[in-house]
Amino acid sequence: MRAVVIRDGGTLVEERPDPEPGAHEVLVRVRAAGLNGADILQRAGRYPPPAGVPADMPGLEFAGEVRANGPGADRFPVGERVMGLVAGAGQAELVVVHERVLMPVPPRLDWAAAGGLPEVFTTAHDALFTQCGLQAGERLLVHGAAGGVGTAAVQLGRAAGARVTATVRNHSHRDAVAGLGATVLSPDDFVDEGPFDVILELVGAPNMGDNLRALRIGGRISVIGTGAGATVEQFPLGLLMARRGRVHGSTLRTRALEEKAMTARALERSVLPLFSTGALHVLLDRAFPLEHAADAYERFAAGGKLGKIVLTL
Amino acid sequence: MRAVVIRDGGTLVEERPDPEPGAHEVLVRVRAAGLNGADILQRAGRYPPPAGVPADMPGLEFAGEVRANGPGADRFPVGERVMGLVAGAGQAELVVVHERVLMPVPPRLDWAAAGGLPEVFTTAHDALFTQCGLQAGERLLVHGAAGGVGTAAVQLGRAAGARVTATVRNHSHRDAVAGLGATVLSPDDFVDEGPFDVILELVGAPNMGDNLRALRIGGRISVIGTGAGATVEQFPLGLLMARRGRVHGSTLRTRALEEKAMTARALERSVLPLFSTGALHVLLDRAFPLEHAADAYERFAAGGKLGKIVLTL
Repeated sequence: MRAVVIRDGGTLVEERPDPEPGAHEVLVRVRAAGLNGADILQRAGRYPPPAGVPADMPGLEFAGEVRANGPGADRFPVGERVMGLVAGAGQAELVVVHERVLMPVPPRLDWAAAGGLPEVFTTAHDALFTQCGLQAGERLLVHGAAGGVGTAAVQLGRAAGARVTATVRNHSHRDAVAGLGATVLSPDDFVDEGPFDVILELVGAPNMGDNLRALRIGGRISVIGTGAGATVEQFPLGLLMARRGRVHGSTLRTRALEEKAMTARALERSVLPLFSTGALHVLLDRAFPLEHAADAYERFAAGGKLGKIVLTL
Repeated sequence: MRAVVIRDGGTLVEERPDPEPGAHEVLVRVRAAGLNGADILQRAGRYPPPAGVPADMPGLEFAGEVRANGPGADRFPVGERVMGLVAGAGQAELVVVHERVLMPVPPRLDWAAAGGLPEVFTTAHDALFTQCGLQAGERLLVHGAAGGVGTAAVQLGRAAGARVTATVRNHSHRDAVAGLGATVLSPDDFVDEGPFDVILELVGAPNMGDNLRALRIGGRISVIGTGAGATVEQFPLGLLMARRGRVHGSTLRTRALEEKAMTARALERSVLPLFSTGALHVLLDRAFPLEHAADAYERFAAGGKLGKIVLTL
C-alpha cells in the first residue's frame, strides 16, 4: 500500500507492506484521512507516537470502506462506510483498527468530510461535554475557533443550546465562524465579554490568566491546544479558588482502546445524528490528493487555515 | 452578647447587640466556635467577608443549642444540639443561621470537637468527593496534613477506602498524622512516591509543578489553601494535558445559602455517621475560653499546630 511517511522533517508517499487484521480488527480501504496538529509535531520529531505505532507514519483519523474483517469482527459488513481514530499510520491506503473504535459514516457525508470528522469532533465533544459538562443556556468561549477543533466546538456548543463566543486571530475567517453561530471577537478583547461558564483553550498558555478573570463562578476550562505556549507564567491559584473553577488538560492519542471506544459510542449517540439533521458540518479548508501530502502539510504548518485539511485517496 | 471583634489587626471580646432570627432562621446559643485560616486573613484585613456580614466579626463555624426558632423554622426543637457554617460572626455567644445549613451534633461528640467540625470536614469532603470524586482503592496525597482540613481529609480518605499519603512539615506531628492512617512524608520527598489519583493542596503554589509530575493519568488536584504562595511561577499545561488531569480551586465562604445547605446534607449523609462509628475524630490542638480569643489567634497564626483551635463559651 501507499502511505505518508516522515523523513528528515518532511513527508513523502512510499510503499509499505499491507497491514492484516487480527482478532476483532477490521481492514479498511481508506478514502480520506485528515491532518491534525499532532501530525505536524510528529513531522518535527516532537510528538513520538505511543508504543506499537510506527514513528514515521503519521495520521490519526480516516474514513473508508471495510475491506475485510479479522477473526470475530462482525460490527460492519464488507463495503460499509466507516471512520475512526487511530494512534498513527492513518494516512495510508489501508488501516487496521479494532472494530469497537469504528463509527458508521453518516449518510450523505462525502469522503473528504468524513475523513476530517473523527479527531476534531471527538476532541471537541469530549472537552465540552465529558470534561466540562457544558449545558444548554450556558456561555461557551472557544479560543482559536477557526481551526478544526474550533469549528467543531462552535457548532457542537450551538447545537446543544449554549451561547457561543469565539476568538479568531485571522480577520478573514471571522465571518465564517460567525456563520457557525458564534459571536466572534478579537483574541485581545474577550476578558470584558465574560463571564463564561466553559472556556475551550485551543491557543495556549498566554490566555490562561485572562481566562480565569473571564470565568464565571463554577466555570470550567479545557486546555486542548498550546501552540502559542505551554507554560503559564504566573498562574493565579487565588483566582481559580475565587472562581471555584476547574482546569482540565487532555489528549486523545494515548488513550487506551476502551477509552477510544467510549468516545466513539458518545459520538454515535450525540454527534453523528446531528450531521443528518444538518446541524453539524465538517468545515473543509482544502482537500489534497494523497500524492500531494507534502503540500497539505505545508498548508497546515503555515497556519491561518479555516477548518480541516484532508488527504483524499 | 459577647463576641470576638477585630480591631487594629488584633482581636478583643466586646458586647454586641443580640441577633434575632428571621423567617426560617434559628437563634443558637454557641458553646464552641472554631478558628480557621480565613479568620487570620480577616484579622489582617486581607479577606473581607461577603456582603451582609460585619467586617469586624470573624468566625465561620459554631456548635451550640437551639435557643429560639424564627417564623417557619421547625427542623430542630429548642435545646437541640446543632452546628454549622456561617459567613462570619460565628465567634459569639449567639448566632443566627438559616435552619437548612444546620446539622445535628453527633451523639457523644463534645462541644469543643463539634465547634471545630463543620468548616474542615465540609471543606475536605467537598474537595475529595464532590470535586475530585475520590474512590476506594485510589491513592490520595494530602499536603499540609497536620492542620484542621488536613487531619479531616486524611481520615475521610481512609474511611472511604483510599490509600492515603500525607506530607507534614513539622516533624513532631508526623506520628500523629500517621496514627490517622496515612503514610507520612517530608514535603520535599513526595514526587517519587506517586502516582497519586487525587492530591489535596493545602500548602500552595510551590507544590503545583511537582503535583502534576506525581499525578496519575486521569488524576485530580484540589487547591484549597495557598499559605505558602498563591501564584504558580511556571504552570506546565503540557504536563496537565499529558496527565489528562484536572485542577480544582474552591472556597466555602462565599457560597450561596442553597450550596451551603447542600454541603450540610452531604455531611449528614456521609460524614456525621462516621463520628458515631468511631472512624472519624476532630483533632483538637487546643481549646481556649472565649475571653482568651487573642491567645487563640496568636497560637493559630504562629503555625505548627496539630488539628483545630477552638474557642469555648
